[in-house]
Amino acid sequence: MPATAMPSKVQATKRYGGEVVQTEGSVLDACLALQRERDLTLVHPFDDLAIMAGQGTVGLELLQQVPNADMVVVPVGGGGLISGIAVAVKLQRPSIRVVGVEPHGADAMSRSLERGAPVHLERVDTIADGLAPPFAGEHTLRHVERFVDEMVRVADSEIVDALRVLIQRAKLAAEPSGGASVAALLLGRASPAAGSTVVCVISGSNVAPDVLKNLL
Amino acid sequence: MPATAMPSKVQATKRYGGEVVQTEGSVLDACLALQRERDLTLVHPFDDLAIMAGQGTVGLELLQQVPNADMVVVPVGGGGLISGIAVAVKLQRPSIRVVGVEPHGADAMSRSLERGAPVHLERVDTIADGLAPPFAGEHTLRHVERFVDEMVRVADSEIVDALRVLIQRAKLAAEPSGGASVAALLLGRASPAAGSTVVCVISGSNVAPDVLKNLL
Repeated sequence: MPATAMPSKVQATKRYGGEVVQTEGSVLDACLALQRERDLTLVHPFDDLAIMAGQGTVGLELLQQVPNADMVVVPVGGGGLISGIAVAVKLQRPSIRVVGVEPHGADAMSRSLERGAPVHLERVDTIADGLAPPFAGEHTLRHVERFVDEMVRVADSEIVDALRVLIQRAKLAAEPSGGASVAALLLGRASPAAGSTVVCVISGSNVAPDVLKNLL
Repeated sequence: MPATAMPSKVQATKRYGGEVVQTEGSVLDACLALQRERDLTLVHPFDDLAIMAGQGTVGLELLQQVPNADMVVVPVGGGGLISGIAVAVKLQRPSIRVVGVEPHGADAMSRSLERGAPVHLERVDTIADGLAPPFAGEHTLRHVERFVDEMVRVADSEIVDALRVLIQRAKLAAEPSGGASVAALLLGRASPAAGSTVVCVISGSNVAPDVLKNLL
């Protein structure tokens, strides 16, 4: 994990029995070094077809629960989650609109789409640590190009406003990454037709008690 | 509403367009007086067969969502919610166990069951304002006698511990009344057999930001 990872995520991982290695540098480089050193299997956080397929089960489940969904709004980091969801929902219900949301300060996927090849960001700057990988994947970019209708961006302050709505009105404690989809919807950047049925994926609730207290 | 009602509930009611009348005395007496004065229809908060039937839809919905439920744990104030739920689930799935939970400081239903007639409490003392009616209903007592397997009690401090678990682990902001069922389960007072499928009804999330902040 990056040295800046939320302490609540580090602690939760340790509680589940994980060993946590933090690095000031590139997390992926540190993973690859550990993999060689200890002869491990790398589980890529997003740019892996099996990981993307696994995340696609979110798409299958949301169609089971909301068979008439017209739009799905998904937060985007490296793009694994939206790739899996988009394939799953588009192949079952082609009319569904899939919108991805990135923070302004970590918009690698939007920039990669514009350039047609994965862009590596010099730096990322967002409170949504789960959306902060500094590059889009090769596989995920191809899936987003083919199956995602639109990418939009939100500011950190807009994410915070959405988190406040989530806790006060929907009674859900979400982490900043999770609030991005709701922010895009509230701001009209993911703009469904009147009367549409919309699903926002709220992908993460590792929010530290102090962060939640500040929101309140 | 009582003069001591949570400000967040008062404000939410006004936001929905309601007129709020607060009283230092008996809320039911104040309702009856207003009813006569303005020629209104009284909607009793619990001791009314139509209200109980309406609340029974919670039982129907939980069986749809969790058809293999073995136990349902329900917070009890005047007893309307548990009466409706118990009838709905017992008639569809007689093997299901229904457990009611009251705060120690507002245990009118438990005492009424012991006496076999509705007991009026001299005073109530609990943070769970939604569970604080000072008496059980005539109708609700009969339903609880017939359809509820067991009533248990929890302390306010135990409810607060359950609220903390709900926000930190389940990511749900519940009000004290809503935490009572989870408290009973965590404490082993509603004690399902190993491997059972248990539903806790979390009945209310009108929790003021300050209360939630204190929990965190």
